[in-house]
Amino acid sequence: MPPEVLISEVGPRDGLQSVQATMPTAAKLRWIDALHAAGLREVEVASFVPAKLLPQMADAAEVVRHVLSLPGWTVMALVPNRKGAEAALRAGAHKLTLPVSASEAHSLANVRKTPLAMVDEVREVLALRDAIAPQARVEAGVSTAFGCTLQGAVPEDDVVRLAVALAEAGVDDVGLSDTTGMANPAQVRRLFQRLFAEIADRTGAAHMHNTRGLGLANCLAAYDVGVRTFDSSLGGLGGCPYAPGASGNVVTEDLVFMFEAMGVSTGVDLAKLLAARAPLQQGLPGEPLYGMTPEAGLPKGFVQELRHG
Amino acid sequence: MPPEVLISEVGPRDGLQSVQATMPTAAKLRWIDALHAAGLREVEVASFVPAKLLPQMADAAEVVRHVLSLPGWTVMALVPNRKGAEAALRAGAHKLTLPVSASEAHSLANVRKTPLAMVDEVREVLALRDAIAPQARVEAGVSTAFGCTLQGAVPEDDVVRLAVALAEAGVDDVGLSDTTGMANPAQVRRLFQRLFAEIADRTGAAHMHNTRGLGLANCLAAYDVGVRTFDSSLGGLGGCPYAPGASGNVVTEDLVFMFEAMGVSTGVDLAKLLAARAPLQQGLPGEPLYGMTPEAGLPKGFVQELRHG
Repeated sequence: MPPEVLISEVGPRDGLQSVQATMPTAAKLRWIDALHAAGLREVEVASFVPAKLLPQMADAAEVVRHVLSLPGWTVMALVPNRKGAEAALRAGAHKLTLPVSASEAHSLANVRKTPLAMVDEVREVLALRDAIAPQARVEAGVSTAFGCTLQGAVPEDDVVRLAVALAEAGVDDVGLSDTTGMANPAQVRRLFQRLFAEIADRTGAAHMHNTRGLGLANCLAAYDVGVRTFDSSLGGLGGCPYAPGASGNVVTEDLVFMFEAMGVSTGVDLAKLLAARAPLQQGLPGEPLYGMTPEAGLPKGFVQELRHG
Repeated sequence: MPPEVLISEVGPRDGLQSVQATMPTAAKLRWIDALHAAGLREVEVASFVPAKLLPQMADAAEVVRHVLSLPGWTVMALVPNRKGAEAALRAGAHKLTLPVSASEAHSLANVRKTPLAMVDEVREVLALRDAIAPQARVEAGVSTAFGCTLQGAVPEDDVVRLAVALAEAGVDDVGLSDTTGMANPAQVRRLFQRLFAEIADRTGAAHMHNTRGLGLANCLAAYDVGVRTFDSSLGGLGGCPYAPGASGNVVTEDLVFMFEAMGVSTGVDLAKLLAARAPLQQGLPGEPLYGMTPEAGLPKGFVQELRHG
């Protein structure tokens, strides 16, 4: 039996593009190797954006090409548009993820397009994918799905309408992101239930932030209503640089501990996952890492029954 | 309509007895005043133990007497035994809470008695209560209910058997405490469901720790199966000084934010609750306080519809 949930590690992209320092390519590859060794089966390794905007991601194509050699996992890249998608597909990424904001204010600030204009961009990416890399998957992540630091509340109908438009455009999975750390468990359950009702198995990942401490509670809420893919980052690195005051991805170590302790298999080896903090820290000296489980250690008598994919 | 959940603030006892410094009585009273002003309706203000063991609690009787003058709330005191109970009842405490460990190893280390011997002690406390203060309530908190740093796993049957014995002894409420931060949401649901099945409305509070980051997820899990009283401490102060490596009460600010954001009323005014950190910090200069919501602030556009008791 395969693991019950998929932990999608976003640290090498979401995390590294949020910090000031640039991790050298060799250090990135050592860290990503350690993530693979821990049993992670999906990782967002890079963002295909102009190097002058995000120098931390200038080596995106090189990183993708290297980590493709590691067996049995999905190499994902974030692309903001058709141009980035072409570069990512040519580098061989298995899966593209496109952020599409449900908040018009956030969308304009982030990509200078409205949410609906972004659906057109996604359509172009899908056509390109069909033409040059039909085996690649395309995921859309609806950002600011639970609230926006610029416009405040985001109507749930707006989120569902956008998700449906993206699914109708042909996206493989549509996830929901709590970009700004404003989600609560009741809202998470409501929105994902609506997504399952509207787009069924195209409902994708829960990408939660721990800005107000609710990250794991929101993941639990999403799990309760059927979500089986969860984004998180090792050491809680990252957040969203374009949403002022927002920060704090869910910590992979704590998330994996929660599921494994519940008896929900992740396929991730907790001891090796904790060990993967060392190459991250070596590549980013002085950068603060988060996580309660790493600090407390695994509980006395805790034995993980690891289930591989 | 009264608030749907009761937040039982344990900082002035659980928190203050866990730190090295002793908060001056006047500072304690200023802090407790601020907690009352925020709308908290139950507070654990002191521990009635010998002053040479816990000098931080030497003013227990004085603190209880002062805060009894604040209207509309329940003043609770922790008592380890009959002797402490007598002092607390004579000081006028509305409610006593007795910790009873489900782990024999923890119980012996903590109070030098087995769990079953503690049930006899609880019976004596109940007889005393009936004799000198029949209006007072007596709660038992089953500690190490989800695991023990000394003995490791604690069998769920042991926890349920102890809870039933305490209810049969006549205790008004039996809560479950994750003293060591080892609980997970599946276990929380299982154990509280068994408690409701066995002792019905004598099922009491969920006292969760955030040692491994799961504090709020565990509170959500307890809420889902019907728990309506939650222990937490302002600024996350405290833990258990006798369980090595254990620390980190659930942060009241984050817990209240979670429930209020979900539309579950607590009766606690979030803005005033955040303001209650100032007198705590003034009374314990240099002591680190925790909490994500205080750091991030309330979300843009967040309006609390406060429901009073």
